[in-house]
Amino acid sequence: MEENKNRPLILITNDDGIQAKGLRSLIQAVQGFGDIVIVAPDKPQSGMGHAITVNDVLRLNPSPLYPELNAFTCSGTPVDCVKLAISEVIEGKPDLLLSGINHGENSASNVLYSGTMSAAVEGAMEDIPSIGFSLLDFDPNADFTGAQWAVREVVKKVLDNEFPKSICLNVNIPQLKQEEIKGIKICRQAKAYWKDNFDKRFDQFGKPYYWLTGDFNRSDRSEDTDIWALDNGFVSVVPTQFDMTAYHAISQLNEWGL
Amino acid sequence: MEENKNRPLILITNDDGIQAKGLRSLIQAVQGFGDIVIVAPDKPQSGMGHAITVNDVLRLNPSPLYPELNAFTCSGTPVDCVKLAISEVIEGKPDLLLSGINHGENSASNVLYSGTMSAAVEGAMEDIPSIGFSLLDFDPNADFTGAQWAVREVVKKVLDNEFPKSICLNVNIPQLKQEEIKGIKICRQAKAYWKDNFDKRFDQFGKPYYWLTGDFNRSDRSEDTDIWALDNGFVSVVPTQFDMTAYHAISQLNEWGL
Repeated sequence: MEENKNRPLILITNDDGIQAKGLRSLIQAVQGFGDIVIVAPDKPQSGMGHAITVNDVLRLNPSPLYPELNAFTCSGTPVDCVKLAISEVIEGKPDLLLSGINHGENSASNVLYSGTMSAAVEGAMEDIPSIGFSLLDFDPNADFTGAQWAVREVVKKVLDNEFPKSICLNVNIPQLKQEEIKGIKICRQAKAYWKDNFDKRFDQFGKPYYWLTGDFNRSDRSEDTDIWALDNGFVSVVPTQFDMTAYHAISQLNEWGL
Repeated sequence: MEENKNRPLILITNDDGIQAKGLRSLIQAVQGFGDIVIVAPDKPQSGMGHAITVNDVLRLNPSPLYPELNAFTCSGTPVDCVKLAISEVIEGKPDLLLSGINHGENSASNVLYSGTMSAAVEGAMEDIPSIGFSLLDFDPNADFTGAQWAVREVVKKVLDNEFPKSICLNVNIPQLKQEEIKGIKICRQAKAYWKDNFDKRFDQFGKPYYWLTGDFNRSDRSEDTDIWALDNGFVSVVPTQFDMTAYHAISQLNEWGL
């Protein structure tokens, strides 16, 4: 892509924080595609969903971790990172927003809890072509080579095509070697949820506290879902929107005579 | 409703915290409708979106604020409150989940940032009829009498009708006296966003910090939107789903040849 004089400006963020291997893997994967600006959380922000910081101040600091790049840490959430990047770092909009690569799956209803995906959704609200990438491996030292291949394939297509309005892409990558990945599939979000459990323990004063745990119920296995794609060796790509209106329910509600 | 021997079990939460006037107003509004359990954040959790607490422990404590009711505080987010209530307090599912009344508007894209609405969305994921209520007034001492009327009207209809599957209701109430409210309208989520601004200041060491501020752009004023309803004196009710798939974009993406 280096022959292109108008190199795209690529904003990169994540939710695992500036030090994550997934972030470094994403940067490495797309370094040839454009000019990179990084604004990532200064600490892990997993599970932050679309949270923003309204009752506290935000810090924005240059990061020494990527001295050759334009890299900053933000004290807030992934969505704060996107907002601060646009308002204070780039002072305008990037051509592309990439979030990840997340250490862990963001398929199905995980999209709602995911800081990685919420950064991409925020990008979509700002009319920026935006993609969240997640690898199905929570290991801090996970092997991202298959994921890096998927990132390059998807980003090439995004740069070569018109991006649909008001959406972003939710890309999940199975934990397979590149040569084992069967392909890339456009999917819908599976109807699959967490069955929550709380691990109840007692502190040194005998008072209870709880850790959130649970099992992910992969029951919606239709062939058009992200869960099916991932369980069958494909990379899943779900176009994801921020209009949460349940249009199909409007006529039913109108019959209530409110 | 007291003649009904099977009184519905109503779980109440919010994002402004256990001490908020909006929570008390919601409890007062529905006290005749069923048995109430409260699990609310122990501190303000505005703007937390669908965040969950994964890297810290959660505390759950009986609250002395509502001695006559089954009331607890949770140290986490509104979504944590719902999860803990179902797993540890009710140990089952309530018949109805009510969230709010929020001090401030949750129309349009605010639904994504809103802890109030994320609690209701979490309820929908658990197949519980769930409603988030928000008043267009940030004042901690706002007048909730008009909102209480709207709460009762909507809850009555929800208890008397079949609730659509896999959705919740996003109810916003204009800051008007009850007799000035023109009615209740079923709407779609307006395409209206925040234009962010950061207020940059310097601390006692000369280092910068930022407060998130902004202007809400009410530009999508079609008559079928929540923004239009609110601007014209109606209570808005938006059926809200958690399937974020942009189905309309799937065929376009399939043409990319990924």
